[in-house]
Amino acid sequence: MVTTKLIELRNQVDNIDKSLIELLSKRLKLITKIGEIKSHYGLPIYIPERESSILESRRKEAEEFGISPNLIEDVLRRIFRESYINEHKKGFKTIFSTIRSIVIIGGNGHMGRLFKKMLTLSGYNIKIIEKDGWQNANALLNNACMVIVSVPICVFKKVIAKLPPLPEDCILVDLLSVKKLPLEVMLNVHKGPVLGLHPMFGPDCTSLVKQTIICCHGRKPEAYKWFIQQIQFWGVRIYYTNAIKHDKNMGVIQALRHLTTFLYGLHLAEENINLNDLSYLSSPIHRIELSIVGRLFSQKPQLCADIIMSSKNNINLIKRYHQRLNKIILFLENGDTKNFINNFNLTKHWFGNYAKKFLIESRILLNSVNDLF
Amino acid sequence: MVTTKLIELRNQVDNIDKSLIELLSKRLKLITKIGEIKSHYGLPIYIPERESSILESRRKEAEEFGISPNLIEDVLRRIFRESYINEHKKGFKTIFSTIRSIVIIGGNGHMGRLFKKMLTLSGYNIKIIEKDGWQNANALLNNACMVIVSVPICVFKKVIAKLPPLPEDCILVDLLSVKKLPLEVMLNVHKGPVLGLHPMFGPDCTSLVKQTIICCHGRKPEAYKWFIQQIQFWGVRIYYTNAIKHDKNMGVIQALRHLTTFLYGLHLAEENINLNDLSYLSSPIHRIELSIVGRLFSQKPQLCADIIMSSKNNINLIKRYHQRLNKIILFLENGDTKNFINNFNLTKHWFGNYAKKFLIESRILLNSVNDLF
Repeated sequence: MVTTKLIELRNQVDNIDKSLIELLSKRLKLITKIGEIKSHYGLPIYIPERESSILESRRKEAEEFGISPNLIEDVLRRIFRESYINEHKKGFKTIFSTIRSIVIIGGNGHMGRLFKKMLTLSGYNIKIIEKDGWQNANALLNNACMVIVSVPICVFKKVIAKLPPLPEDCILVDLLSVKKLPLEVMLNVHKGPVLGLHPMFGPDCTSLVKQTIICCHGRKPEAYKWFIQQIQFWGVRIYYTNAIKHDKNMGVIQALRHLTTFLYGLHLAEENINLNDLSYLSSPIHRIELSIVGRLFSQKPQLCADIIMSSKNNINLIKRYHQRLNKIILFLENGDTKNFINNFNLTKHWFGNYAKKFLIESRILLNSVNDLF
Repeated sequence: MVTTKLIELRNQVDNIDKSLIELLSKRLKLITKIGEIKSHYGLPIYIPERESSILESRRKEAEEFGISPNLIEDVLRRIFRESYINEHKKGFKTIFSTIRSIVIIGGNGHMGRLFKKMLTLSGYNIKIIEKDGWQNANALLNNACMVIVSVPICVFKKVIAKLPPLPEDCILVDLLSVKKLPLEVMLNVHKGPVLGLHPMFGPDCTSLVKQTIICCHGRKPEAYKWFIQQIQFWGVRIYYTNAIKHDKNMGVIQALRHLTTFLYGLHLAEENINLNDLSYLSSPIHRIELSIVGRLFSQKPQLCADIIMSSKNNINLIKRYHQRLNKIILFLENGDTKNFINNFNLTKHWFGNYAKKFLIESRILLNSVNDLF
């Protein structure tokens, strides 16, 4: 009796889910058509205003239907992502028409390959120079309209020193995660346009839409305006800052984060914790941390070392972190709850309105982690 | 010309999205009906096998339709969550019929309220004792079939000392984030059934389905078997462990995590970083970290202090973390990349197969963070 009723209702649910698949498939096909038109007329694939207006309208309609606006928003955001992946395949408008080529030094590395792919999809002629391919380098570089240097920081200076004089209008670009040093080095060897970029995403991201690239001007910004526009056409957000501000923030975002993540992992390993127990017993928030820490150790150790050791400032920042840990440990050993709480409140005050914003954001995150299991 | 075509296609997309809302609304209504049947016949709301079988079938069908199986899986998981929130409202089967009441000491705190709500939805008679409500406590406690102590760790011993002798068959339960100490204290004052629970979720989670509660047996597990079953009916996952193992793992999951999160926040505040710049310039992964760190500072400082200072072992664990930081800083200062990489590889080895698992998990997370903006 109970099973008959349940089975019937469940069949109805299954049928709805099948209609859902059909609907998603129809929607993605329409997006492909839209992508073709956009690509033909050179319109960007990601238009933030269109996204917000869809979300706003659908949220209202969801409420009228008595369902949660957050549900439709989350579902649509996930569908948007899929749409961008599909739109990608159609290629992008070529902003700057030239028969000269773009040379990527280190173009077979992760980030180099990504730029090669995106620039090829945008209609440019890409040439690659790898470690062992400098014998034909001069011929390639003499005719380049842009040279993108995508090599590890530890060999950057050496690579730049190898460059022959580039055409005066050639744009010289680096992709390093620090900006002051490479800009100085590039401005020194090349008298033409120079640009420092720092892509804030890993090479494993599925679409560049909504990803960030930080841009530090070097010389003659008007010469590489088309390149920035091209990147924006991929859906990437550009943030402008200067090299000093960039490097200060990256001390935290990259060096300190890599250090603390590395240290946390090392600590777990040396404490001989049972990782299986740990992951079962974890709260969702600790599960996120574990994921993020574990992720680091599936990457290259040299990259991690390079990021942390890229400047003396980073090491000083880490030493001050160490001193603050000293201070806190003294509070803990003395049971000095009062001073602990004072420091807590000082930090809470510093976070200001962001504390609430981050609470909401992290709640969304925690919910999606929980959905996974 | 371009706009007419685009507008027409976009209208079609909007219509599909409206059908999507209708479909979601129909699905949730069916789930409400299913919930009524389940509640009537006392079936659990969360059946993992049903979820996996839906996902497996729909993934296959999605592939046949040429759309990504991950898309339909992500969308369905989000819908499942919504369904659980809705099913909640119907109440739960009462596993243990009794006219005696369940007393929650500290029942107006966050976690106390959550247990009150869930137990009330499950048909139990709940009484609350708060700090200032001990004058009628004895009458309530003399007739309790279960007493749940939901108070901060710093007052736990004092509260337990206040208890009159409880009925011999009364179950005494605590919800603290350490387990060895409260179990000892409870076993000492009460000769009947004793149970240590540790809910691994915050009071702000939208549904208990798929959340974890860790369970450490105290005395006479057969007496509180019904209570564990009741909790499982809410969709909660129970993990059994012993108090010592629990406390060791919580040293990492709670104390160390709170310490490092607190320290990271304090460091940012004292370095006088511009939080606005920092959040704009962040990579998605750092954005997650910022959210998690900021989240801590929207909570109570005393709770954070209590969690870290709850045992001498925690402080020793943190001191060893500090020593490891010392070691790493020496590597960094000496430019000792070799030893840094050795330690990296040691940790990578410790993560073993989990490194890849966490990479996949974190990629899903990073994608959903990216969808948010």
